Amino acid sequence: MKKIEDYIRTIPNFPEEGIMFRDITTVLQDAEGLKLAIDSMKALVESAECDVIVGAESRGFIFGAPIAYALGKPFVPVRKKGKLPWETISESYALEYGTAEIEIHTDAIKPGQKVVIIDDLIATGGTIAAAINLVERLGAEVTKAVFLLELKGLNGRERLKCPVDVVVSYEGI
Amino acid sequence: MKKIEDYIRTIPNFPEEGIMFRDITTVLQDAEGLKLAIDSMKALVESAECDVIVGAESRGFIFGAPIAYALGKPFVPVRKKGKLPWETISESYALEYGTAEIEIHTDAIKPGQKVVIIDDLIATGGTIAAAINLVERLGAEVTKAVFLLELKGLNGRERLKCPVDVVVSYEGI
Repeated sequence: MKKIEDYIRTIPNFPEEGIMFRDITTVLQDAEGLKLAIDSMKALVESAECDVIVGAESRGFIFGAPIAYALGKPFVPVRKKGKLPWETISESYALEYGTAEIEIHTDAIKPGQKVVIIDDLIATGGTIAAAINLVERLGAEVTKAVFLLELKGLNGRERLKCPVDVVVSYEGI
Repeated sequence: MKKIEDYIRTIPNFPEEGIMFRDITTVLQDAEGLKLAIDSMKALVESAECDVIVGAESRGFIFGAPIAYALGKPFVPVRKKGKLPWETISESYALEYGTAEIEIHTDAIKPGQKVVIIDDLIATGGTIAAAINLVERLGAEVTKAVFLLELKGLNGRERLKCPVDVVVSYEGI
């Protein structure tokens, strides 16, 4: 049986020299790859307390929404600044050059709810660390963060103050 | 039983004076709303021939990925320029001010495949008209475009050269 690794395309030197880019579109564009990815991540969510699934724009949407649908949970998007139309709170995080800002609707999650955050990949963990802060500022608790892939060499887990589970872990960056 | 309209939040004068913004995050953040939205759109996909689901960045990901998962189909993302790591083709389309460009991986869809395109909303139809061009340039056929919402006053359907189905149609813009 094929594993998730078998569906991932590795592109050397993208977006810059020395980076091995892990392309997940080849997982998605195979019906069995998509099913395996969602079902594998769903199983990792099911071992946590979870009232709400949160996904970060935009690849977190591709994995978060099907998992929420399959589990019968609500899906809450965390979006780049200026995209959400209602009242929001925001968090900044550092990029390689400069900073970025993400937002969440203030009525999207209720105090005391248990939240699982979904994304495709954990690299340095900066975006998801900011997403965790947003959830906590709404009075809710992040019980787990689930990723399809992890780049272990970047130590992203250490920046996240919640349990982390991943389907596939790569040694490098 | 609640209808999709009951889950949608209408925000007057966003992003500018005179626009009634239809906010779909209130559908997503309700487990029953999310299930109803995906199941309603899925039923509209099932009446078309479909080998592949295509969704446009980024709200098309929220609806397209769960529909693909639920139907056991592949999911192919159409993304903003520069986001896809492999070989792509691109199409430009007009915005209110200036133009934007979207891309698809050249190996994502095979010639002769039947494609259903998913998005949250059809307004002027510019993005999805460009997405249809991308699919056709890969030698595939768009058998239907499915939207959760339509703003009828903007006549977006007329710009699309494929059958169109929507769950909810609003009279205005």
